[in-house]
Amino acid sequence: MRWYPFAALLLGLGGAAMTARSDEGMWLLNDPPRQHLKDKYQFELTEAWLRNAMLASVRLNSGGSGGFVSPEGLLVTNHHVAADAIQKLSKPGEDLLRDGFVAASRERELKCPDLEINVLQEIIDVTKEVNAAVKPGMSPAEAFAARRAVMSTLEHESLKTTGLRSDVVTLYNGGAYHLYRYKKYTDVRLVFAPERAIASFGGDVDNFEYPRMNLDVAFFRAYENGQPAKTPHFFRWSDTGPAEGDLVFVTGHPGTTQRLETLARLKHRRDFTLPYTLARLRTLEAALHQYSEQSSENARQAATDLHSVANARKAFSGQLQGLLDPQIMELKRKQEAEFRERIVQQAKATGSPPPDFAGTFGRIETIQQQLREFEKPYNLFEIGHAFFSPLFTIARHCVRLADELPKKSAERLREYRDSHLESLKFQLFSPAPLYPELERAKLTASLTFMAEMLGGEHELVQRVLAGKNPAARAQELVRGTKLFDPEERQRLVNGGQEAINASRDPMIVLVRAIDAAARQLRSRYETEVEEPERQAYATLATWRFQVYGQSVAPDATFTLRLAFGTVQGYEVDGIQLPFHTTFGDAFEKSAQRNGQEPFALPRRWLDGRSKLDLKTPFNFVSTADTIGGNSGSPVLNRAGELVGVNFDRNRHGLVRNFVYTDVQARHIAVHSKAVLEALRQLYPEAAAVVAELTGK
Amino acid sequence: MRWYPFAALLLGLGGAAMTARSDEGMWLLNDPPRQHLKDKYQFELTEAWLRNAMLASVRLNSGGSGGFVSPEGLLVTNHHVAADAIQKLSKPGEDLLRDGFVAASRERELKCPDLEINVLQEIIDVTKEVNAAVKPGMSPAEAFAARRAVMSTLEHESLKTTGLRSDVVTLYNGGAYHLYRYKKYTDVRLVFAPERAIASFGGDVDNFEYPRMNLDVAFFRAYENGQPAKTPHFFRWSDTGPAEGDLVFVTGHPGTTQRLETLARLKHRRDFTLPYTLARLRTLEAALHQYSEQSSENARQAATDLHSVANARKAFSGQLQGLLDPQIMELKRKQEAEFRERIVQQAKATGSPPPDFAGTFGRIETIQQQLREFEKPYNLFEIGHAFFSPLFTIARHCVRLADELPKKSAERLREYRDSHLESLKFQLFSPAPLYPELERAKLTASLTFMAEMLGGEHELVQRVLAGKNPAARAQELVRGTKLFDPEERQRLVNGGQEAINASRDPMIVLVRAIDAAARQLRSRYETEVEEPERQAYATLATWRFQVYGQSVAPDATFTLRLAFGTVQGYEVDGIQLPFHTTFGDAFEKSAQRNGQEPFALPRRWLDGRSKLDLKTPFNFVSTADTIGGNSGSPVLNRAGELVGVNFDRNRHGLVRNFVYTDVQARHIAVHSKAVLEALRQLYPEAAAVVAELTGK
Repeated sequence: MRWYPFAALLLGLGGAAMTARSDEGMWLLNDPPRQHLKDKYQFELTEAWLRNAMLASVRLNSGGSGGFVSPEGLLVTNHHVAADAIQKLSKPGEDLLRDGFVAASRERELKCPDLEINVLQEIIDVTKEVNAAVKPGMSPAEAFAARRAVMSTLEHESLKTTGLRSDVVTLYNGGAYHLYRYKKYTDVRLVFAPERAIASFGGDVDNFEYPRMNLDVAFFRAYENGQPAKTPHFFRWSDTGPAEGDLVFVTGHPGTTQRLETLARLKHRRDFTLPYTLARLRTLEAALHQYSEQSSENARQAATDLHSVANARKAFSGQLQGLLDPQIMELKRKQEAEFRERIVQQAKATGSPPPDFAGTFGRIETIQQQLREFEKPYNLFEIGHAFFSPLFTIARHCVRLADELPKKSAERLREYRDSHLESLKFQLFSPAPLYPELERAKLTASLTFMAEMLGGEHELVQRVLAGKNPAARAQELVRGTKLFDPEERQRLVNGGQEAINASRDPMIVLVRAIDAAARQLRSRYETEVEEPERQAYATLATWRFQVYGQSVAPDATFTLRLAFGTVQGYEVDGIQLPFHTTFGDAFEKSAQRNGQEPFALPRRWLDGRSKLDLKTPFNFVSTADTIGGNSGSPVLNRAGELVGVNFDRNRHGLVRNFVYTDVQARHIAVHSKAVLEALRQLYPEAAAVVAELTGK
Repeated sequence: MRWYPFAALLLGLGGAAMTARSDEGMWLLNDPPRQHLKDKYQFELTEAWLRNAMLASVRLNSGGSGGFVSPEGLLVTNHHVAADAIQKLSKPGEDLLRDGFVAASRERELKCPDLEINVLQEIIDVTKEVNAAVKPGMSPAEAFAARRAVMSTLEHESLKTTGLRSDVVTLYNGGAYHLYRYKKYTDVRLVFAPERAIASFGGDVDNFEYPRMNLDVAFFRAYENGQPAKTPHFFRWSDTGPAEGDLVFVTGHPGTTQRLETLARLKHRRDFTLPYTLARLRTLEAALHQYSEQSSENARQAATDLHSVANARKAFSGQLQGLLDPQIMELKRKQEAEFRERIVQQAKATGSPPPDFAGTFGRIETIQQQLREFEKPYNLFEIGHAFFSPLFTIARHCVRLADELPKKSAERLREYRDSHLESLKFQLFSPAPLYPELERAKLTASLTFMAEMLGGEHELVQRVLAGKNPAARAQELVRGTKLFDPEERQRLVNGGQEAINASRDPMIVLVRAIDAAARQLRSRYETEVEEPERQAYATLATWRFQVYGQSVAPDATFTLRLAFGTVQGYEVDGIQLPFHTTFGDAFEKSAQRNGQEPFALPRRWLDGRSKLDLKTPFNFVSTADTIGGNSGSPVLNRAGELVGVNFDRNRHGLVRNFVYTDVQARHIAVHSKAVLEALRQLYPEAAAVVAELTGK
């Protein structure tokens, strides 16, 4: 990753509050920046526009966004978001990820083994209910349990009443709680995917770079009762796309940002969490690289794991460079100082007692010190970083379901609450293929990483390794487990505690051996970090509303948000980059790089070059505020039509976890026209898709 | 890297003392295992045999071994040892590493910019002199200074007397000191190198694996006064090579082993040093990978760095798996317990006072605890891991030479002693090319690693980064420095303290800014670790001689050693691997892998296949005891003829740092016949080399 000094960039950094000029914000759909859009863009955000945007936007449980683009359940997302599903539909000798896929008819659409999509139907503010459950004087453990219980009850009741997937979402790190109700689809079928070579043209080299020339789209169709779902709310596909200077909107599910975190928390991220995370990702990336080099079939098996690890490594590297930039830290320090000053002034003005900074900023700082003590074992054993394999996740669920299901829903670990069980089992019993040698390589790497982090004398390390070195232990676990078979998982879950206790499956035995310790780490995290941080941030949120009003959007939470911005290019080192690239640029770049990986174009593109209008806009950029999770997000124009599909940020946008800037930072989207032109000229088998998109 | 349980392997692990059956040991040339060779192999090691082996063996200062193979200075080593020099002889558009090189005549031999070779002439035991300098009651700092002074004086006197490069070598971690006198050659020219595709056939995938089919050889010629050096002591090139079961010898310069280290020290390695080392190597490997992917010219520039980092990563991963293997640690524990018991018994038997375990084993354990406190900053700032670029090393030498040269030789930092200055300057003023963008990428990675290890608040981190993030700081340093130019380095060194003080070169300014702190870390390491460990190990060595006699070789120290073993295959998972591979195997494997990287054969080999006798033995294995640094070592038969060129160990041999085993562990060598056949059939331009090798 290249990286440039921030001097120029900083000129455009926004403050804590949104200025009249800034396009900052991943806004809640129930609290959109109406006035700002009116003032700056003379755009009237209507209820109808918002409602269509909400009901046509889609969340994929594999970690991305998308949108319906026809009334018959057709939806678009990124190829790299679809990759997980496409990989699971592939097998040795049939590599749909590499070769692409077009369903010649609806009957040929391929049902994904475990892809679930959610469509937000309604948002209800439940802050009062959630906070009311926590009584003064409760210990953190009691408060955490009370909060978990009330959330679970609210969700359960909502599910019973509406039949909709219901999740209570924590906003502002604890400043607000909203209940999100989703329509859920679990029969999702692959309609179209281009070849990876054009979807990810430039590969890891060009990831987070611009100019880009990627056809990073894929189409699925949602089904209900074996029939294409009826989706009256959808985005009309624009056949012109955006022009320079256009106002555009992005609806999608940004994953996480840390803009409202305190300076102490950010320093902890910089000095502990991010170095740990990067060390872990580099370990996994090296192991996956080495596995892939063994053969082309190995490379096929490891492709999606490798991409997601490499992508994360690049994103987190950018975050770390950002937090190591003294100018950015200085800005965050100033913002915090100004915020404190405003709070003090506000208190004085209203005659309130002086604000309790020790119980808020100070408490969050203390929490970080405590977190250092156990963050690594917590991540390794409870989050599961020591076991980089779905086999572990599967075993963990089997073991914990046996423990948790006998309890009342409100008292279970959150992921086992009634309202979530269906989605969990859909994943758990997925028939998606797993490859023993790949899982062995991944487990070897992560078990080794565990030992590196904690040392060979650590009691849990010794318990996990059980008298072997990491490589031998991984081999034993993978060779011995029967959890590759979904029926075995079913058997264990149906058999409950008795089946688990009787199991000699080494993966089940491993999970049981560490589960008490892992649960203890989790409960320590909940009571020493999560709950006290929530309480402190709740106070900070109250103050923030008091001094800045509603002008600050909450940090991202992988829930539906609305962002907006202007389509425009930018300058780097004196060179003006245009707001869009063209098909011609892709051929040119490939030629410059002698058609070598990752700049090789698919045969279909090389052969079909003359059929294409090479001036067709391919990718474009705008200033809208996005982050990971926004991949696949529809980009809309004022009319609410889809003019693009967001797929990346440029490297200047990597600091957006912490600060918004629009001087050079841009999100990157596939142009709506590019998709139509490519489908029409190069993928004649997809004629029905084009007809459906254009309504003809 | 694949890894197998050690159950079977452990059956063959030797104890602390050499058993009658073991081929363990990297023996000193002045203390070879004569009796053992006689007993086990009925081989009489004569003075003449030994002397020729010593005078014909070569050490390359780039970190490997070799041997003279003609009376006219021709020497053989590994291609991967020669790679550093070959890389430095390459330039954009002329990639000798990839394409190979044959000097059609002696005039065309290419002079290497900074390759120095050393040939051991004599060994003198100076243990008494060195230990006599340390008086009872001296503080560790005084003892360290006294020892350094006496070593420097001994070397200086030896150089004056003999004109030979003279190094005092610390053996048995401080149990003995020997003065090594070397003849030095600094005019070394490249004669022959094959294409990398056949030299490293299988690349990183097959590194540390067997069966192998690598032509991992290169030939240089040593020159004196512009003429080929006269080297009457050389190894005759065997045109038959070894047969199965043959006794063979390996002469070479094994780098480091840790077999005599205490358990406490090994645990420190397992839990601190190795995890740190692997995190560092993975960071660098990822950065070099990413740099290489940018273009084929980038890949060319980064090739040797990437290979050496990847090779180290694999070797250290193997070490870590070894130390994480409870069976190996248990063996080491038993060895140490048995050793202690024998010492106690010995003391009782001789009526000596009870041995001071607190002052030896106990002290070494305490030292490890102290070392944890500052090992990372010591490695980062004094060893220079924070600055992965020769530009830093160059700047450091310029700054320190100005400080050190005014002092008496005996009082300088060891690397600036008079007897070493010539070799140091030969490196420092090397005209070998450096590539700014590559150095920037490497510096960015290592500066980031520094910040990850120590955190953004660390005072030295802030001083190094000087208000920038790592990427921006690396850019500033590389863009600003003039040290790419050897003349600028000369100017600074000639200008002494005044020139250094006046310099505004950012790299010089950086070195000066941290030099006091770096020196302090070094002196802390010397007085808290190095000197007290030496004293403790000296006592352990005395005890070891008392209870085990001379049957234990010292740990490796990158000085000349003699190993021996039997040519034989081995069994893995029930499959018997033959003692040698053939040319045919290479073609077969390449075909299996569809000629894909790293299993692509060079055009010359594909075209010349029919000319080759495909049954020609290609690589072979033996049980002789080798480690990194032995790369390029001559493998000799009873007659002292060269039958092979060692180039690797198999993965079972990766634990040899800690324990010797011969059940599956093998070193791997290029068969002498393979070299002749390949040169004769495929490289007709090298006819003169063949004539020289065969004496025809």
